[in-house]
Amino acid sequence: MSQPFPFSAIVGQEAMKHAMVLTAVDPSIGGVLVFGDRGTGKSTAVRALAALLPPIRCVAGCPVNSPRKADCPDWTAVEDTRIVSRPTPVVDLPLGVSDDRVTGALDIERALTKGEKAFQPGLLAKANRGYLYIDEVNLLEDHIVDLLLDVAQSGENLVEREGLSIRHPARFVLVGSGNPEEGELRPQLLDRFGLSVEVTSPHDIDTRVEVMRRRDAFDRDPRGFLKLWKPQDAQLRQDILAARKALPKVSTPENTLTDCAALCIALGSDGLRGELTLLKAARAAAAFEGAGTVEREHLRRVAAMALGHRLRRDPMDESGSAARVERIVADTLGPVRVAAE
Amino acid sequence: MSQPFPFSAIVGQEAMKHAMVLTAVDPSIGGVLVFGDRGTGKSTAVRALAALLPPIRCVAGCPVNSPRKADCPDWTAVEDTRIVSRPTPVVDLPLGVSDDRVTGALDIERALTKGEKAFQPGLLAKANRGYLYIDEVNLLEDHIVDLLLDVAQSGENLVEREGLSIRHPARFVLVGSGNPEEGELRPQLLDRFGLSVEVTSPHDIDTRVEVMRRRDAFDRDPRGFLKLWKPQDAQLRQDILAARKALPKVSTPENTLTDCAALCIALGSDGLRGELTLLKAARAAAAFEGAGTVEREHLRRVAAMALGHRLRRDPMDESGSAARVERIVADTLGPVRVAAE
Amino acid sequence: MSQPFPFSAIVGQEAMKHAMVLTAVDPSIGGVLVFGDRGTGKSTAVRALAALLPPIRCVAGCPVNSPRKADCPDWTAVEDTRIVSRPTPVVDLPLGVSDDRVTGALDIERALTKGEKAFQPGLLAKANRGYLYIDEVNLLEDHIVDLLLDVAQSGENLVEREGLSIRHPARFVLVGSGNPEEGELRPQLLDRFGLSVEVTSPHDIDTRVEVMRRRDAFDRDPRGFLKLWKPQDAQLRQDILAARKALPKVSTPENTLTDCAALCIALGSDGLRGELTLLKAARAAAAFEGAGTVEREHLRRVAAMALGHRLRRDPMDESGSAARVERIVADTLGPVRVAAE
Amino acid sequence: MSQPFPFSAIVGQEAMKHAMVLTAVDPSIGGVLVFGDRGTGKSTAVRALAALLPPIRCVAGCPVNSPRKADCPDWTAVEDTRIVSRPTPVVDLPLGVSDDRVTGALDIERALTKGEKAFQPGLLAKANRGYLYIDEVNLLEDHIVDLLLDVAQSGENLVEREGLSIRHPARFVLVGSGNPEEGELRPQLLDRFGLSVEVTSPHDIDTRVEVMRRRDAFDRDPRGFLKLWKPQDAQLRQDILAARKALPKVSTPENTLTDCAALCIALGSDGLRGELTLLKAARAAAAFEGAGTVEREHLRRVAAMALGHRLRRDPMDESGSAARVERIVADTLGPVRVAAE
Amino acid sequence: MSQPFPFSAIVGQEAMKHAMVLTAVDPSIGGVLVFGDRGTGKSTAVRALAALLPPIRCVAGCPVNSPRKADCPDWTAVEDTRIVSRPTPVVDLPLGVSDDRVTGALDIERALTKGEKAFQPGLLAKANRGYLYIDEVNLLEDHIVDLLLDVAQSGENLVEREGLSIRHPARFVLVGSGNPEEGELRPQLLDRFGLSVEVTSPHDIDTRVEVMRRRDAFDRDPRGFLKLWKPQDAQLRQDILAARKALPKVSTPENTLTDCAALCIALGSDGLRGELTLLKAARAAAAFEGAGTVEREHLRRVAAMALGHRLRRDPMDESGSAARVERIVADTLGPVRVAAE
Amino acid sequence: MSQPFPFSAIVGQEAMKHAMVLTAVDPSIGGVLVFGDRGTGKSTAVRALAALLPPIRCVAGCPVNSPRKADCPDWTAVEDTRIVSRPTPVVDLPLGVSDDRVTGALDIERALTKGEKAFQPGLLAKANRGYLYIDEVNLLEDHIVDLLLDVAQSGENLVEREGLSIRHPARFVLVGSGNPEEGELRPQLLDRFGLSVEVTSPHDIDTRVEVMRRRDAFDRDPRGFLKLWKPQDAQLRQDILAARKALPKVSTPENTLTDCAALCIALGSDGLRGELTLLKAARAAAAFEGAGTVEREHLRRVAAMALGHRLRRDPMDESGSAARVERIVADTLGPVRVAAE
Repeated sequence: MSQPFPFSAIVGQEAMKHAMVLTAVDPSIGGVLVFGDRGTGKSTAVRALAALLPPIRCVAGCPVNSPRKADCPDWTAVEDTRIVSRPTPVVDLPLGVSDDRVTGALDIERALTKGEKAFQPGLLAKANRGYLYIDEVNLLEDHIVDLLLDVAQSGENLVEREGLSIRHPARFVLVGSGNPEEGELRPQLLDRFGLSVEVTSPHDIDTRVEVMRRRDAFDRDPRGFLKLWKPQDAQLRQDILAARKALPKVSTPENTLTDCAALCIALGSDGLRGELTLLKAARAAAAFEGAGTVEREHLRRVAAMALGHRLRRDPMDESGSAARVERIVADTLGPVRVAAE
Repeated sequence: MSQPFPFSAIVGQEAMKHAMVLTAVDPSIGGVLVFGDRGTGKSTAVRALAALLPPIRCVAGCPVNSPRKADCPDWTAVEDTRIVSRPTPVVDLPLGVSDDRVTGALDIERALTKGEKAFQPGLLAKANRGYLYIDEVNLLEDHIVDLLLDVAQSGENLVEREGLSIRHPARFVLVGSGNPEEGELRPQLLDRFGLSVEVTSPHDIDTRVEVMRRRDAFDRDPRGFLKLWKPQDAQLRQDILAARKALPKVSTPENTLTDCAALCIALGSDGLRGELTLLKAARAAAAFEGAGTVEREHLRRVAAMALGHRLRRDPMDESGSAARVERIVADTLGPVRVAAE
Repeated sequence: MSQPFPFSAIVGQEAMKHAMVLTAVDPSIGGVLVFGDRGTGKSTAVRALAALLPPIRCVAGCPVNSPRKADCPDWTAVEDTRIVSRPTPVVDLPLGVSDDRVTGALDIERALTKGEKAFQPGLLAKANRGYLYIDEVNLLEDHIVDLLLDVAQSGENLVEREGLSIRHPARFVLVGSGNPEEGELRPQLLDRFGLSVEVTSPHDIDTRVEVMRRRDAFDRDPRGFLKLWKPQDAQLRQDILAARKALPKVSTPENTLTDCAALCIALGSDGLRGELTLLKAARAAAAFEGAGTVEREHLRRVAAMALGHRLRRDPMDESGSAARVERIVADTLGPVRVAAE
Repeated sequence: MSQPFPFSAIVGQEAMKHAMVLTAVDPSIGGVLVFGDRGTGKSTAVRALAALLPPIRCVAGCPVNSPRKADCPDWTAVEDTRIVSRPTPVVDLPLGVSDDRVTGALDIERALTKGEKAFQPGLLAKANRGYLYIDEVNLLEDHIVDLLLDVAQSGENLVEREGLSIRHPARFVLVGSGNPEEGELRPQLLDRFGLSVEVTSPHDIDTRVEVMRRRDAFDRDPRGFLKLWKPQDAQLRQDILAARKALPKVSTPENTLTDCAALCIALGSDGLRGELTLLKAARAAAAFEGAGTVEREHLRRVAAMALGHRLRRDPMDESGSAARVERIVADTLGPVRVAAE
Repeated sequence: MSQPFPFSAIVGQEAMKHAMVLTAVDPSIGGVLVFGDRGTGKSTAVRALAALLPPIRCVAGCPVNSPRKADCPDWTAVEDTRIVSRPTPVVDLPLGVSDDRVTGALDIERALTKGEKAFQPGLLAKANRGYLYIDEVNLLEDHIVDLLLDVAQSGENLVEREGLSIRHPARFVLVGSGNPEEGELRPQLLDRFGLSVEVTSPHDIDTRVEVMRRRDAFDRDPRGFLKLWKPQDAQLRQDILAARKALPKVSTPENTLTDCAALCIALGSDGLRGELTLLKAARAAAAFEGAGTVEREHLRRVAAMALGHRLRRDPMDESGSAARVERIVADTLGPVRVAAE
Repeated sequence: MSQPFPFSAIVGQEAMKHAMVLTAVDPSIGGVLVFGDRGTGKSTAVRALAALLPPIRCVAGCPVNSPRKADCPDWTAVEDTRIVSRPTPVVDLPLGVSDDRVTGALDIERALTKGEKAFQPGLLAKANRGYLYIDEVNLLEDHIVDLLLDVAQSGENLVEREGLSIRHPARFVLVGSGNPEEGELRPQLLDRFGLSVEVTSPHDIDTRVEVMRRRDAFDRDPRGFLKLWKPQDAQLRQDILAARKALPKVSTPENTLTDCAALCIALGSDGLRGELTLLKAARAAAAFEGAGTVEREHLRRVAAMALGHRLRRDPMDESGSAARVERIVADTLGPVRVAAE
């Protein structure tokens, strides 16, 4: 209904914007978790992302936005099989949404009126091939966060309830916002988000005035403001599409893998999700920059967002996780070279 | 049914009355939270506000009071499309109201009798373009307060439950009354109210006698009392309508923005909602006073109500938040000039 | 079914009986809260009150006992419109009563059999123009007490649930009995009762023998006992009716208002309900005594019951609240004059 | 189904048997609470009581066992109006019984099949004019015990739920068994039982062998055993019927009332239920013994069971409540006279 | 479905096997509670018992296995009235069984399809005249254990719910297994089990090898193993049937009763269930051994299992309850005589 | 839908792979519990197992995959009776699955539309003759884990609810993954898993690079990767089938039993499940290696996984359970011989 604020007009917050762009280039990187105080524009950014993303081609009547008729799930009788172009779905998890509405459930209407046991798809179906946004992850019950992460990772939604046994693709990027003051997430949940970034209120007057100015301008004349920023958003969309095409051709030198493993061992991150995410994020960064090969610079650039939320808490080390990652990156990968690009 | 006490006849409580008038001039300022002891007339004031507010023009059969047929939501078949004039809606959240009734829900009657899945709008629909009043916010569960604030801010109600996926405009000003003794609100919730004011019992005999006299007069002869105060209420309504018209033309000098940012940094308020609200409240105050430009005086006048509930608690500073705001306003904006009006 | 014990035959307990009589003279004084040990006849007194009260004239088929057809609520199709005389309703809140039954709810029977969404009025409707009695207020959940006080004060019942949006008058006097040993009431709830009185077991043998004698006589021969006390109850009923008629003509000198405010400030009672209740109770006492003007004596007589439950707890002062009120009344209003009547 | 153990064959436990007999003579004394260790035959005694009690005359089709057609409740259409003779009802509250089944509830069957809202009477209806037994009162939730005591005392059941508003007589004697080790009853509940007795395991071999012998004889040959004890049970039944007839003619001298009050004041029992129960129990004891006048001896005999559960706990006095009652009875009423009978 | 392990092939665990055999001889002894660590074959033993027990003769269509048509409950219309032979019912309480399924409940199917209120019998009906097994009594909620013990003791199931008022015989032996490490049972529940035994893992290699050998043989070739042990199981079944026939003729000398009482007083067991159970268990042991008279030897043999769970905990005595019982048995009954058999 | 990662391509984690293979050779060994940090590929391994397992022959329409028509449960009317070949079922317990869906339940659809009470089989039916996987056992409620273990052990599912009394075979191997940091399992539950293994992240760079390389290769080109590893998976499947055939012929020397018992006594494992599982696992290991006789080497190889989770916690011994088992194995069985194979 209401037009969102343009993504390009967001003042600062570069890490958050970069992380979101990377998941648009390679959705298999996994979700993004945005930490930050209240009022720092987390939710504005996600809604802005929605308007920025490139459209998808899909079957008009398919409940999971499949690109071809053959990919539509077998429990649905697709009537409108035209291939249409649609905005990338961005599904917003409303506060107090019920389980049923997330996973889908028995279609009570059809059950009552026609005596048929049919499946009514939920938000996970709608989000297929797009984004699913959870505001204030901390306020959701763990079992729902777990369910969402589970589906986001496996790429399919499996429903076993009320006599239904349904399965459909549900490939989406999960974007969550969280406020560390409202209770921590379990490490197991943190680990399953691909990237994490932190946002804070700017502390200099000029930036704050600029934020206020743009926001006030948008509130008073949304159309004029959107028109002003349209070219920047369009350019960014083009860059994302180009990076997606380039991604499979980016080469990954052997020492990149060794660097990833060395970094994770040095940081003491459990399990193996850390290095895989680091590798993928670096490759997406390379593609977005138009580089043909993953370089140490790319690892450097994404290490904090790929690994920061996977560190064990070190009670002796009071520096934040991003600072710790950067220090160890410098130790492990050596000083910054002048980048090739 | 029963006539409310006239707004103009409320003795004292100037800050509360001013805050309510400002949200009537610019509803985008956000809600008002009224703190105070029991028996200080909070609930009387809100009911008084209802009778004061200017009427709206809307489609007779539209469940969300839309001004034009084209704005009525698509899930409703509006039959009576005449444009009528109606009192500004003031919806009262009754104690023990159910979730369903707030957000709207499946219309069980139609589902049972006609086998149709129809949406029955709730209180959020009724409150569109008006006010929603919650008595004793502290007694509501956090998730409901959160839901109300969420909708109040985004301006739309999104319902995803029982197989429904409904969206409708829900632009209203939330007015809450709270008693700090009955348990605090989370800072996250506080931050999302636009303005806050505190009311206390008067401590001098004359004021208390005057309150008793007016209240007793009203209880014994409501009609006579209302007639007595009608002209004052009518004048105030006129002033609000004039201010609404003037608002878009009020100019905002560059240094006003800088002042707002400087004040918020000095007060250490997190996020950016503080300065935006301060700016809007000052602009509405200017419009209500008939000033063409936002002046430092306007910032001074509204700073306590726009920022008082956004301060971090300072254990070393025992003065109340309003006093702290005023001290820092004086430090930051300099001594009071003789106002232009 | 069974006949209640006659009000006039209750031995002692003058404060309780006086408070009940005052609310019968002016129901707008608000409810009465009776504190006391178990077995002190609280519940006997309320049931006795029922039989004493003067009858009301109302529309036979009106669910809220309206005096005229035009006053019956719009959601009801009144069939029997004759004006009949009925005992003042005294509704007893049975233990374990459900919310629905208190406020009224969807009429399930009509919904199922006729597919109509009709409202079935609850106890609040029945109690309109009468009394609502809650035994052991302490045992009710706060939200129900709150709801009852809310309705008692606003005089109307507003139901928003199950797709119903209903409103009907519900003007009644709430009488609650409580045992302070079973858990305190929140100050917010206390403040909303108009009057409070304390009852205790008598400690002299003669009184106790008299209580036993009357109770035993009543148990063994209820009819004979009722006949014996009928004249006293009839006289009291007459006095109440006369006081109701005289009430609007009782004059309130300016210094009475000042006295009320001075007393409340001296007692440190929060909010403004204290002095308004004090004023009304004194006026009703004057009317009941046949006095044309509210005198200091009347304030003296009702001060403890109007203000005793509104004091802040003073940890340094171990005397009971009634004693504290009396001391401050003596300080503020001066020594007792010989009353004019 | 299975025959209960004969009341007369119970070895010892005289207080318990006497208390039960007194309530059979005058049911208005109120319920009996039997305290004691597990395995002391409490439940055996109650079931034995059932077989002992004299039959009642009632309308065959009346759900509340009314003696005359005119007394049947108005919500029931009694078809079989013959007057029949029936055993005194003894209703056993089964573990896990639902609220609905206790108070009665909407008759779902008729509601579903005939679309009628009819009342289906519950256990309280069945128990009218008889006994209601609760095993292990401590294990019931307070609100149910409260409900049962409330009905037992008022003598009528008032149901306000599911759109029903029903009232029917429910005069019964409540017999509860409790184990003080399993959690105490609130003083408020204790006070509402008429009498209380304590039972313990016998500590001498001979008594225990006698108990075992009778129980083993009963288990091995129930019919033979019942036949053996039939005359004793029949005699007891006759004595109860005679006492019932004599009760209204027993005279109560003035000093009996004074004695009752003096005893209660000396014992510091709150409220006035203590002396009324003492008076009634003494009168029933007199009637059962064939005495024409209540004597001090009768007061002595029933004081412990009428007052023992109404004492305030005295932390300085470690003797049991029965011993305390007896000491004060001796102090107050003087040494035991040689009884007149 | 699967064949249980043969009872006779259980290695060791003599006390447990003896207790089970005694309840098969005289079911009125009451249930058996088997305490022990995990993996000690408790559940194997109960399932083995099922296959061992003698068959019963019953009416084919009777839901409670009645031996004659006249004994079938009146709420059932038995169609197949042939007398058939059936295995002794052994009902297994599955984890998570619902209350309804235990006691029986309204037959929803018939209620919905035929509009009739019929009773659908539950597990208590099925268990009539047989065994009811609860694995891990500790994990059941107290109120269910209580319900089962209540029914087991009274021998009838009384259902008062959903408008049903049903009664049917439910005589069964309750066998429970419990692990003292998983939370204790309340003494009240313990007391209501007739017998208790403790099982432990054997600590010598030979026994453990023998257990493994038999179990492995059974797992690899169940049929062959069952065939091997069939004669032993058949002999035991014969012995049980013979003992049942002999039981009523076993004589009980006077000093046996005195011994029972003396033992229970010496052990300080509360109530009178201890000596009655001791008497019955000794009589059943005598019958099983073919003795015509209960001797002290029989008391000695069953004292630990009849009384061990009825001792008060003695904090000064760290020996187990079985050891304490044996010591006191030796003190009370004197040294072991050479048994007569 | 998506192809799982090939079992043979899993880098390292030999114990986990060996345990899974052994349960494939002899499912009566019982379930496998895999402990480990997040991100160590537990869930990947189980999904890989699914693709590896040999197919089964079963009746096409049988809900429990029975091999012959005669084995299908009696409550099902199998229509398609052809014998077909199917992948070994591997049922995945989705997060938030309901009880009903696990055990099966009343078929509501048929109940509503046809008025028939039919059973709808659940996941336990589907899992018959296959595997049931629970991710994060720690997060399931104990009563569900208990239920699953109960069924896994008894091999049949017994449903007593909603008026159903159903029984069907449910023989499956339970595979659970758990994270010891998320709360411990009760010892009783641990003991009922046959085997347990621990997995950890590799700590050398080469292994981690290899894991990353294979995983990245699989993510980028699943088909190519699967083709590459197909021969290895096929070979393993052949070896399992051969071992199954050889298993009944493997001989178990007498001293193997003695060794098992000696080991368990030395380790102090409660109950007798430890030695039986040890015996079976060693026999399966022998069969898988093609050995005709169970040797001490086989015991050595499986002792840690069969006994490690059955040790009592020894607060004085800080070494892990696997290390303790190995030390005691060395003490008890002597030093490692050169194995015969």
